[in-house]
Amino acid sequence: MWTNGYIAVDWGTTNRRGYRIGADGRCGGEFEDAKGITGVAPGGFPAAIAEIRERLGDLPLIMAGMVGSNRGWVEAAYVPCPAGPETLARSLTIIAEERAAIVPGLSFADRTRADVMRGEEVQLFGAVASGLVPPDGLVCHPGTHNKWATMENGHVTGFRTVMTGELFSLLGEKSILSQWLGADVEPGPAFRRGVAQGLGGAALTAELFGVRAGVLLGRLAPEDAAPFTSGLLIGADVATGLAGTDHGAGIVVMGRPELTRLYAAALDEAGQQAQEVDGEQAFLAGIAEIAEIVRQLA
Amino acid sequence: MWTNGYIAVDWGTTNRRGYRIGADGRCGGEFEDAKGITGVAPGGFPAAIAEIRERLGDLPLIMAGMVGSNRGWVEAAYVPCPAGPETLARSLTIIAEERAAIVPGLSFADRTRADVMRGEEVQLFGAVASGLVPPDGLVCHPGTHNKWATMENGHVTGFRTVMTGELFSLLGEKSILSQWLGADVEPGPAFRRGVAQGLGGAALTAELFGVRAGVLLGRLAPEDAAPFTSGLLIGADVATGLAGTDHGAGIVVMGRPELTRLYAAALDEAGQQAQEVDGEQAFLAGIAEIAEIVRQLA
Repeated sequence: MWTNGYIAVDWGTTNRRGYRIGADGRCGGEFEDAKGITGVAPGGFPAAIAEIRERLGDLPLIMAGMVGSNRGWVEAAYVPCPAGPETLARSLTIIAEERAAIVPGLSFADRTRADVMRGEEVQLFGAVASGLVPPDGLVCHPGTHNKWATMENGHVTGFRTVMTGELFSLLGEKSILSQWLGADVEPGPAFRRGVAQGLGGAALTAELFGVRAGVLLGRLAPEDAAPFTSGLLIGADVATGLAGTDHGAGIVVMGRPELTRLYAAALDEAGQQAQEVDGEQAFLAGIAEIAEIVRQLA
Repeated sequence: MWTNGYIAVDWGTTNRRGYRIGADGRCGGEFEDAKGITGVAPGGFPAAIAEIRERLGDLPLIMAGMVGSNRGWVEAAYVPCPAGPETLARSLTIIAEERAAIVPGLSFADRTRADVMRGEEVQLFGAVASGLVPPDGLVCHPGTHNKWATMENGHVTGFRTVMTGELFSLLGEKSILSQWLGADVEPGPAFRRGVAQGLGGAALTAELFGVRAGVLLGRLAPEDAAPFTSGLLIGADVATGLAGTDHGAGIVVMGRPELTRLYAAALDEAGQQAQEVDGEQAFLAGIAEIAEIVRQLA
């Protein structure tokens, strides 16, 4: 399977990225577009797949992310933590007639809470396999839904999701704050003031309205509203991520650089040094590792 | 001024309610429609006012709410706390050529935070004037932006806004949770479980994603997602409202009955008994009190 190369697709809610990987393991072509799963009409996945093959070649497909969710193409499993790459490779959802496979997601449950992830797990294992992330430690993966994953010996033993990105986006699109939230967010003083409040356990839904009141009463500059609000949410997120986790082995922030630098600044405000890692290479390394395990299993 | 009667308008962001008040102080006609300030085109207020007079009569107008905000018709002041009805009556914004007046809002600021309200202040003073609310105590006024107001001797001495209603609405319209949030919210067991988590200081942005994970993994019934989420947000709101306020003199929840009963249930979960009051009569009593003060001042 996949010995002549394959196409790897990171298929999320609003975006997808495809890569052609040759028999030599090298990336020989790629694209990114806004055809996330919400951009595919019901029954439209076979056509969306054909379009990917037109762009990248007539090769088998291996996909990860929300394409395997209950809103995606075919629902793939969630495998419970603790889990490693071999767990994923043994639980692929195969769509034989389309020469395609979907990587399962991960689930976590204990007495008090439950959680799920899809897509980030491939990056987490790939980052370990390629040496970007140590096999033990805490990994923060910001995005629409930020994930805090505890890694032990290259396995994910637990994780927690915080919907910071989605909430900031909702507030920016349509809320009493939206007129101010379109501004650029830099990790400067206003951002750090927000982080400090979020870290300190501020009442989020009250502090959010406080942004409006602060601007109206001249206590917060309008151009500071976006970085302050972003800092407030990210500060609360970091407080949640650090609570009760053992991060003695180090913290890595993995994802898009414009987000990882905000989280690294917030972690710095919390007295934690974090290493930043770009998630794109980690995805390809993770898919390559899964493909290699499947070859050995076959 | 207003000796032959007047029209009182409670003009909010998404709705408006108008009442014709006769020389005898009685309500002789009313209407409610969805022409909140966001439904009025730029420059459209004189026409919107004319429409109100066509419905209710050619009388002077006294208005309160977001019509006096920076997004409304004419920006009215915010008068700082502590403030009573006479403070509002002395600071009306008069639009003489339209025979109209807008009641100012209230502001609160101390070393750590700032806050604003528009519209609720009229209800607060009216509720005291008509004996619905005691002159001392804590008043919770749920709505798009819930207000917790501390009353002393009939004056508002401080308040805090929590944007619970707006956040629940945003999540219901367009978020990873929206498919489940359209269900009815009753103050039953799922609501109370959410309240308990919110009261206990749960990490809101993490617990919100936990709703999705809980449903996907079968730990939360889909029909419980809406009441649980509402309870979570209202519980956090109540924790904020009770923190650091002196409510020994009693708590009143004033507003629309479908909201006051949820807040009363959440307060009960927090071990606090609250009295529920309908806000509509309080608004008319508040406007009547302001009109009477203006008559005495004139």
